Amino acid sequence: MSSSILDGMAGIVGAKNVIVDPDAMVPYLREWRDLFRGKAQAIVRPGSTAEVAALVKLAAETGTTLVPQGGNTGLVGGQIPVADGREIILSLQRLDKVRAVDVEGDTMIVEAGVTLQRAQDAAEAAGRLFPLSLASEGSCTIGGNLSTNAGGTAVLAYGNARELCMGLEVVLADGRIWNGLKQLRKDNTGYDLKNLFIGAEGTLGIITAAVLKLFPLPAARATAFLAVPGPEEALALLNAAKAGAGGTLTTFELMPRIGLDFVLRHASGTRDPLSEPSPWYVLMEVSAQSAAGLDEAVETFLGEALENGLVTDAALASSLNQRADFWKLREMLSEVQTYEGGSIKHDVSVPLHATPEFLARAIATVEQMVPGCRPIPFGHLGDGNIHFNVSQPVGSDKAAFLARWEEMNHAVHAIVSEMHGSISAEHGIGRLKRYLLPGVKDPVELDLMRTLKATLDPKGILNPGAVL
Amino acid sequence: MSSSILDGMAGIVGAKNVIVDPDAMVPYLREWRDLFRGKAQAIVRPGSTAEVAALVKLAAETGTTLVPQGGNTGLVGGQIPVADGREIILSLQRLDKVRAVDVEGDTMIVEAGVTLQRAQDAAEAAGRLFPLSLASEGSCTIGGNLSTNAGGTAVLAYGNARELCMGLEVVLADGRIWNGLKQLRKDNTGYDLKNLFIGAEGTLGIITAAVLKLFPLPAARATAFLAVPGPEEALALLNAAKAGAGGTLTTFELMPRIGLDFVLRHASGTRDPLSEPSPWYVLMEVSAQSAAGLDEAVETFLGEALENGLVTDAALASSLNQRADFWKLREMLSEVQTYEGGSIKHDVSVPLHATPEFLARAIATVEQMVPGCRPIPFGHLGDGNIHFNVSQPVGSDKAAFLARWEEMNHAVHAIVSEMHGSISAEHGIGRLKRYLLPGVKDPVELDLMRTLKATLDPKGILNPGAVL
Repeated sequence: MSSSILDGMAGIVGAKNVIVDPDAMVPYLREWRDLFRGKAQAIVRPGSTAEVAALVKLAAETGTTLVPQGGNTGLVGGQIPVADGREIILSLQRLDKVRAVDVEGDTMIVEAGVTLQRAQDAAEAAGRLFPLSLASEGSCTIGGNLSTNAGGTAVLAYGNARELCMGLEVVLADGRIWNGLKQLRKDNTGYDLKNLFIGAEGTLGIITAAVLKLFPLPAARATAFLAVPGPEEALALLNAAKAGAGGTLTTFELMPRIGLDFVLRHASGTRDPLSEPSPWYVLMEVSAQSAAGLDEAVETFLGEALENGLVTDAALASSLNQRADFWKLREMLSEVQTYEGGSIKHDVSVPLHATPEFLARAIATVEQMVPGCRPIPFGHLGDGNIHFNVSQPVGSDKAAFLARWEEMNHAVHAIVSEMHGSISAEHGIGRLKRYLLPGVKDPVELDLMRTLKATLDPKGILNPGAVL
Repeated sequence: MSSSILDGMAGIVGAKNVIVDPDAMVPYLREWRDLFRGKAQAIVRPGSTAEVAALVKLAAETGTTLVPQGGNTGLVGGQIPVADGREIILSLQRLDKVRAVDVEGDTMIVEAGVTLQRAQDAAEAAGRLFPLSLASEGSCTIGGNLSTNAGGTAVLAYGNARELCMGLEVVLADGRIWNGLKQLRKDNTGYDLKNLFIGAEGTLGIITAAVLKLFPLPAARATAFLAVPGPEEALALLNAAKAGAGGTLTTFELMPRIGLDFVLRHASGTRDPLSEPSPWYVLMEVSAQSAAGLDEAVETFLGEALENGLVTDAALASSLNQRADFWKLREMLSEVQTYEGGSIKHDVSVPLHATPEFLARAIATVEQMVPGCRPIPFGHLGDGNIHFNVSQPVGSDKAAFLARWEEMNHAVHAIVSEMHGSISAEHGIGRLKRYLLPGVKDPVELDLMRTLKATLDPKGILNPGAVL
């Protein structure tokens, strides 16, 4: 039976686009941190929306389970089947056309397999900005970005993937195609279907194309690397900067000294922009549609912040190279942690006002749990989203430390829940956090989610084992 | 049976909050333009979310149909039952608490019955901006704004009601309460339920409270009243202004000369800010978080626009009074049409790039259909949203003109559909446009909507006859 399904799929996409060779399947079944090693019957690579629809229809008729996959960069295993090996990975990578760029309307239509980098480039070639930006942008795809409602470093001003999408084309669980590729900034003609599929991690339908919002390229940017006494001052600085830094606050990233130490130690060509060490730092960027006066306004703002103690030292980038240097300090922060042994990770958010309290409580909790451990909480303070990563104590046993992953997650997530936060601010649920969901979700909400899944995918063929 | 239901409801909300007196019911059954005259068994006014939940539970058990209502300002009859008089209007007006304003977190929690004006005032009292703004803000409510995904004059920069909402509290069709009042800027833990209820016009659940996003108050605004040769130049001006008017473009409203004529004729205390008449005008506002240099930047921008012919004359407000005068010209535009006889209305959107072509085709079509009719297309050009209103020919018979409402709608909507636009950009579907939906919606989308309705409100007790 199984081979007849693969034959049927080969009839739709061509034999060369059905991969069953174990070696050739590896890149689709392993992810870069090697946290997930999956099993699948085959990798099937459709080349068009019609082919995706035909594949899903065949899967629905035969009860075959499908796991949609984009660039395979997801951090929670939503794209990797780990069950009995009967699933088929449906790779969207060949749906890689930029269908249209509408400069006057500030939109573009791209297929699911277009990488984020290519989407950014297509916008820039038309003199526009597609602001979504994240570490894996060279290989992650728009379909994956939308299916996980990706965040990144530009959410503060432009929103996450959800807010950057105006319309979708989706293959439903029965193989029908919903054409919702609307280029409309306003459309109040019924229920919002788009947002049901965004962030659903391929469990309710398969996104095949999207209308994305474009923005004017900023005429000027001012980028500052700031020393701040602590998270409370950083939060006060954030609110002051939103109101009066002289432009649109587009970046506000927090990092602790130990994170900067890791970067300076392990990332070549980096140096501390400031002369004295500080317990905490903020990377701040302000954008404007007019260059006139931006640097002066930011300098005035920082002068006041230095005077009232929200900032203790500041470096303002005076060139594009210096801007890139400042950004590198932030961008390397994830990668360098791998050189310091095991790291237990959390991707959490709390209401903005609660971020300082969360940091104090979570740091105290993990330090009590594993004396000598090294918390590296960093990330998108402007969104209340902290990547609360904890590196192992110096010289300790890596495996023994990582064995406490669940225990530590549990303790940190308990604080998050008490503060009405989220245990997955931007990475999604996937297979990694699926088992945590019943513990943190309102039962009514979980029941509604299950009802929607049963309604939209009654046979359970789309990404089983992810999210729910 | 019916009276036992009202007795049951009186037991929940108190007898004085069950209105059955026909005169006392009138304000809930008629809307201000008198387009809808409804019939209902009673008006029930709960005072808390728990009371709403108990009422809905009782309704579900007894198969009683409910029509939720906020400020009764909707323009498509979504809030007014017009069937056999057995429906009960569930007025949310007594849920009128501002539960919390979180200044540091830039959010506030308000109940459904809080008027938009009060929400704006509560934000401003805390030194923040709640940007949603529309003509009926003195009486429309947040619950209604969210249920209809209201638009208005600040969508260009801040988004519509959907984008201004971070979380919801909703009473489901079986009387359960979903507490989704999250104050999180990022939360990727499952399906997006919030956006399913926003814009659903009370047919999937009853919104009882919401978390709203707040923004810094702009430090400065520059407001200009501009003469433009035509819609094409207005569109080019819009794109130029988004990129380089020296701040955030927060308003870009188009109006034709005849609209200005109507305002000058009927609205006291108005005058033409420009010395020569122009076929079209734009009200443009640019906001900034720093006053320094804004006026100069806008002047430079307008100087260039005058030079390259996108603008033929310009007045920049030099005082708050003058700003108010410019805004009044735009704000009176709806009301003054009533003094010029019958008016056939359309609330449409098309992709931004298609707005000039739409205007040309729609104007030609209605002028051919009713020679001498006076098209007054105006509104939110920045969103591709045109209120395409058509006044009767001078001296013609009002009733005879209005008798052609459906025929004219049909012709205009046919153009909209050809251009992949929307027949209800911001007002919703309600009962007015319900019958138009099958003609313009993708059948797959309509089927998904019906499936969701059947899943979330299986007994069909919530706002029957609206939307679907």
